[in-house]
Amino acid sequence: MTRPESPVFAHHVRVRYAETDQMGVAHHGSYIVWIEEARTEWMRDRGTSYRQLEESGLSLAVTRVAVRYRKPARYDDLIRIETRLSELHPASVTIEYRLFGPADGRAAADLIAEAETRLALIGKDGRPMRIPQDLF
Amino acid sequence: MTRPESPVFAHHVRVRYAETDQMGVAHHGSYIVWIEEARTEWMRDRGTSYRQLEESGLSLAVTRVAVRYRKPARYDDLIRIETRLSELHPASVTIEYRLFGPADGRAAADLIAEAETRLALIGKDGRPMRIPQDLF
Amino acid sequence: MTRPESPVFAHHVRVRYAETDQMGVAHHGSYIVWIEEARTEWMRDRGTSYRQLEESGLSLAVTRVAVRYRKPARYDDLIRIETRLSELHPASVTIEYRLFGPADGRAAADLIAEAETRLALIGKDGRPMRIPQDLF
Amino acid sequence: MTRPESPVFAHHVRVRYAETDQMGVAHHGSYIVWIEEARTEWMRDRGTSYRQLEESGLSLAVTRVAVRYRKPARYDDLIRIETRLSELHPASVTIEYRLFGPADGRAAADLIAEAETRLALIGKDGRPMRIPQDLF
Repeated sequence: MTRPESPVFAHHVRVRYAETDQMGVAHHGSYIVWIEEARTEWMRDRGTSYRQLEESGLSLAVTRVAVRYRKPARYDDLIRIETRLSELHPASVTIEYRLFGPADGRAAADLIAEAETRLALIGKDGRPMRIPQDLF
Repeated sequence: MTRPESPVFAHHVRVRYAETDQMGVAHHGSYIVWIEEARTEWMRDRGTSYRQLEESGLSLAVTRVAVRYRKPARYDDLIRIETRLSELHPASVTIEYRLFGPADGRAAADLIAEAETRLALIGKDGRPMRIPQDLF
Repeated sequence: MTRPESPVFAHHVRVRYAETDQMGVAHHGSYIVWIEEARTEWMRDRGTSYRQLEESGLSLAVTRVAVRYRKPARYDDLIRIETRLSELHPASVTIEYRLFGPADGRAAADLIAEAETRLALIGKDGRPMRIPQDLF
Repeated sequence: MTRPESPVFAHHVRVRYAETDQMGVAHHGSYIVWIEEARTEWMRDRGTSYRQLEESGLSLAVTRVAVRYRKPARYDDLIRIETRLSELHPASVTIEYRLFGPADGRAAADLIAEAETRLALIGKDGRPMRIPQDLF
């Protein structure tokens, strides 16, 4: 079911030098790692440690990822990532992300990218399992 | 215009140890780098060196990426990536990728992932420019 | 000249999932990126923004790196990195790092790795230049 | 025991776009991943699949890495990596690497970097074990 009202969680990452490329901006693959970090912190904020989830034998496997790049992120920029639950189905969860560049005081921060990941819960037997309603 | 008949170019990458994660499979972010390498080799095969393109002051910026993961890729697997032009518009080009796991002799190789990237051509002034029909 | 008394700056990084490998620990290459981030924050703390340094046309090129791994770093661990100036020569600066795993309350945090980088200052002409004494 | 006469194995990697940074050259951390790939192919050439080694419950943990950077590697360069056994002790093996840039026809390829890794063999119990003489 779609959850347009689900609360937003904000996390920040600072662009690392190793994450830039010779175009002089953050490489587009870096965003995948940033939103994964944001998702981990969002889960922690909601009371679920992904580390403990894995230690209990379960895991969340990414089955789809999509990113739309609007403006570049630059080295040393502090990027704000807003994470929210988008859809929760018995067999998958969709999470949305909005990435914002640094605010410069005068103007609001720019939306630099939007992303979406779909995840499946994998059980101890290595197969997808029903997602408990209270996991997220 | 959509080009369902455009030819397919095959490139192989071997999964690096550094590309795995503790789930014991290739991290989902690694695919972004693999398809970028496949795209470079596909362009070279079509007569366009991306390196020379950049040296001439132009660049191709990724504006969208989407990956659908079907089966895991494992360390040391030789992954076959099929690249083809999907859509060519004046301001963007869409490229499709199909990734296959190693064939095991008896059976056909598994389709492990599908991906799509949209790129814009950026001119010397840093702005998007019209894509020449003969670039791809 | 060696500076055994130079002050230590502490920075923390949390191990990302993408930084683990299938051995179930952080990949040894990740440490290179962590100490680069620590170095940037150490410079910022000392009043030098590496970003501004590059924007002024200069850059610091890594000419040597060495890491000694003592204990593994694990996913989600908060790693403490202690950075300090080790040697400052006219043409190079050597920086030392000590990495510590998470303290568990009862015991002191473990030293998990030691590292060292040597850097040269590259001028606007692309050549090494004398390092100003007040840069660090 | 030091083995100055041990044979050299050559492997090539092509610098990926994602491996560059905004200095316009390959990021120094990329070399760690390249020499790991070279080491895997060197072992395969000598009859040991690292993948099979891990599947048998053993693993090689990197305990030290050192890289000396001499000249930059650039995007799309085909880098030649020469790998050879340097020292084989009961509890560790040291492997040396020499990296060369692309030959340009007229001149010999430049030595762009030298590296060294020390590895320990980890047994099924997670502890270092004696390295069999025939492993390398």
